[in-house]
Amino acid sequence: MISWGTRVAGALALALGMVGSSDAASPKASVQAWRKAHEKEILTDFTTLLSMPNVATTLSDVDKNAAYLCDLLEKRGFKTQLLRAEPGTPASVFAELQSPGATRTVVFYAHYDGQPISQKGWISTPFTPSMRTALPEAKPVEWASAAAIDPNWRLFARSAGDDKGSIQAVISAFDALKASGIKPTVNIKLLYEGEEEQGSPHFARLVAKNLETVRGDLLIMGDGPMHQSGKQEINFGNRGIAGFKATVFGPLKPLHDGHYGSWAPSPTVMIASLVMSLRDENGHILVPGIYDDVAPVSPADRSALAALPGVETDLKTAMGLGRNIGPPRLADGYMSPTLNVRAIHGGDDGPSAANAIATEANASLDFRLVPGETPKHVHELTEAFLIKQGWFIVRDTPDLTTRLGHPKIVRINWDAGESIATESPIDSPAAKAVAASISRTAGYPVLKLPFMGGSSGMAEIVNQMKVPMVGVAIANYDDNQHAQNENLRIGNLWDGIEVYAGLLADLTW
Amino acid sequence: MISWGTRVAGALALALGMVGSSDAASPKASVQAWRKAHEKEILTDFTTLLSMPNVATTLSDVDKNAAYLCDLLEKRGFKTQLLRAEPGTPASVFAELQSPGATRTVVFYAHYDGQPISQKGWISTPFTPSMRTALPEAKPVEWASAAAIDPNWRLFARSAGDDKGSIQAVISAFDALKASGIKPTVNIKLLYEGEEEQGSPHFARLVAKNLETVRGDLLIMGDGPMHQSGKQEINFGNRGIAGFKATVFGPLKPLHDGHYGSWAPSPTVMIASLVMSLRDENGHILVPGIYDDVAPVSPADRSALAALPGVETDLKTAMGLGRNIGPPRLADGYMSPTLNVRAIHGGDDGPSAANAIATEANASLDFRLVPGETPKHVHELTEAFLIKQGWFIVRDTPDLTTRLGHPKIVRINWDAGESIATESPIDSPAAKAVAASISRTAGYPVLKLPFMGGSSGMAEIVNQMKVPMVGVAIANYDDNQHAQNENLRIGNLWDGIEVYAGLLADLTW
Repeated sequence: MISWGTRVAGALALALGMVGSSDAASPKASVQAWRKAHEKEILTDFTTLLSMPNVATTLSDVDKNAAYLCDLLEKRGFKTQLLRAEPGTPASVFAELQSPGATRTVVFYAHYDGQPISQKGWISTPFTPSMRTALPEAKPVEWASAAAIDPNWRLFARSAGDDKGSIQAVISAFDALKASGIKPTVNIKLLYEGEEEQGSPHFARLVAKNLETVRGDLLIMGDGPMHQSGKQEINFGNRGIAGFKATVFGPLKPLHDGHYGSWAPSPTVMIASLVMSLRDENGHILVPGIYDDVAPVSPADRSALAALPGVETDLKTAMGLGRNIGPPRLADGYMSPTLNVRAIHGGDDGPSAANAIATEANASLDFRLVPGETPKHVHELTEAFLIKQGWFIVRDTPDLTTRLGHPKIVRINWDAGESIATESPIDSPAAKAVAASISRTAGYPVLKLPFMGGSSGMAEIVNQMKVPMVGVAIANYDDNQHAQNENLRIGNLWDGIEVYAGLLADLTW
Repeated sequence: MISWGTRVAGALALALGMVGSSDAASPKASVQAWRKAHEKEILTDFTTLLSMPNVATTLSDVDKNAAYLCDLLEKRGFKTQLLRAEPGTPASVFAELQSPGATRTVVFYAHYDGQPISQKGWISTPFTPSMRTALPEAKPVEWASAAAIDPNWRLFARSAGDDKGSIQAVISAFDALKASGIKPTVNIKLLYEGEEEQGSPHFARLVAKNLETVRGDLLIMGDGPMHQSGKQEINFGNRGIAGFKATVFGPLKPLHDGHYGSWAPSPTVMIASLVMSLRDENGHILVPGIYDDVAPVSPADRSALAALPGVETDLKTAMGLGRNIGPPRLADGYMSPTLNVRAIHGGDDGPSAANAIATEANASLDFRLVPGETPKHVHELTEAFLIKQGWFIVRDTPDLTTRLGHPKIVRINWDAGESIATESPIDSPAAKAVAASISRTAGYPVLKLPFMGGSSGMAEIVNQMKVPMVGVAIANYDDNQHAQNENLRIGNLWDGIEVYAGLLADLTW
């Protein structure tokens, strides 16, 4: 559909000695040959996995996924167990395989739960995986009977990109190595979370309870999208998150807006005013003090950011945007907090539209946090600022006395599952080894992103494990993760299998 | 539930000679006696009428109502006909009855169509009328088998208050007079519109086509709520309306707000910003020039406004409001334009909530217009102001080239059915006669409201008929008109029957 910048020729990069030590042997050729011979088997496995409903809030569905994954891994010789923080919470699938002679243990993290599916506009059923031709056509295609699989086809299903694709890539990488007689050079631990899309409310406790079991020398984080250029990219952390829902209150009953609009406060206006008091249209956050905690960006991070290829012009074209907000370069914005307005709602719309003043209105917002910031301090700063503007903050629907006693009332409910940013050094020996391995596989120097813009619950995990973390994502950037029509480009799965096979078989430090 | 201010004793008012000429004979006593003996018959008729779906946009339903009303009126000796602007548009029910010796013809206007019903929170089915005890309990009650009907009970149904109650009051008033042997003193014309809740797109043309048929010496407008004090009130016009939907555009596909929130423009923020650029939280409209066309308020109107009893404190208590916006006195606000934000929507809410940047967001707004203002000029001023702020205005969803060529795009779609304000003199002989009649019936001086805050399509009708118009509403102010749980307080129907019987039988000028 669109062309993503200029690709640096792999041969040139290799000639310049940019892509890591030459003494490690990449399994790429063998893995690629095996994959080409087994594409339909891989896709059969993947569509089976994607057919299992996994919305994070439905525990019984999540548990079925966990049991299925254990079975897959046991068949491959892994020792598995289901770890839970406490009964009744989602399990993490833990699997372990010792490699004779290996001195390092690598923990591969991913999550097998998924976002809700009730968004409007799905062109296929979220848990009935649908192979489709390249965008923008996205026509259904019978892959099982096709003569060849086009790598630009995309498999549409909830969790295709976020994050079952990463799990499939690791499993297929393992199968490819085994079939080729290539032995992993590291001990393997797999840790697949089941509540990431709920904000990981129990995951840190789960890890704390099982710290010695799950710990290794390096944590590979297999969540998130790849760079928009389509190039292999690694990251060393992600932003934190603190989200909330704000609800404002108008009359107890809807009022005719002709008779009362000049006199009764309007919740639709109040919520718009509240939103605009917190950030401007250009993305600048207006909460006093919100930027004071932000840690300075290191020179190493600055260099890595500067080395990222430009994607902004292509991105604007792909997304139909006549402008951007914030810094011109996308990834530069990840180094500052962002306040997103996920939703704003008030009054009846569409067929119920009426000339009425609504009884309440609400907005859903999230702060993405950078190192130095904490959800607790963001709560304090935000609420202090709202109070200063005259808002009376409540946690439940106010009763009549409260309503009459306060001119402006807002119910603030902070989300469960908040987190600080996850930080790991960009230049640790383990991180350098990962960069070298992926550069060998890719044939060009892997891109390095200091922080992903998104969030995860990994900060507490990294802080407990006290090991370097490197994020290795394989999903296409335009995978619609968290939204309708989530998909994974098939070429990304193929590349991901090679990348993960490299990490299993040629990682040394 | 709540007590509405201080009631002026009717006897005292009569003693002070405030309530009109004493030579006219009020039929009140006879009408009241008849009503008390026939309450259940009246309610049976009313619930039958309310059981007929009448959402303005469903022509077949509206037509059934029209046929039913013709039948009711034919049985009472009226000559009826269905008037349409053109085939395929909703009919107005026209009915006429000559009164021997009468020199004046009074046209009673009401509308039999209703607002949409798909609002959430209906406690009963909109077209299954449900009698309920007084607010706030509103418990279902079996009125048909009850020993007595409590006037504080309320009948819940779409159009109970807006505006079938007014039709039922006129029909029952006619029945009461007939049963009591009291002859109307005026020729009666009934004009019941079928598309008022659509904004009367064809009604002016319908009247123009049938002007000689429908014209009289006085137009009684039976729509709208009564004064909040519960006192009888008449009005002499209403505000106009110019409404629109504004839709703003973000990325073509939803984007993960962690990865893109610092860079991609957010439609939820853009719509909040657009709304707040047009009015402030206190109701002041920020569109330059919007107040320049407003005609000055006449001394007679000022006096009438000053004479209205204070309802604001009780209203705040009833509505749970800790403040008001705009002028302290409710009705003073009707003399200026108001900009209402009926709805604001963007992003997925509730079970589909996602950390995503929405593709678009919208707001629905309406200006209520006062004399001197026109929808056309309001369109011009509003759009010029939006353009000045950098918005590029479109009428359809923009294509890619348009999106890429303009940083800020808003689709503006003005509503059908806009109107100017309706004006009629507060002190014409006919208006004075109406005031005298209702004051006699009520036992106290009727309140006079220069303009209702709401709107109607009556301006073009009044301007064509060239006769005085007086608004005589009977519905309780808190009838939830246009919203879920619309209702009519039964005591208001009883009083309305007496008021309309008075207008039929003792109106002289």
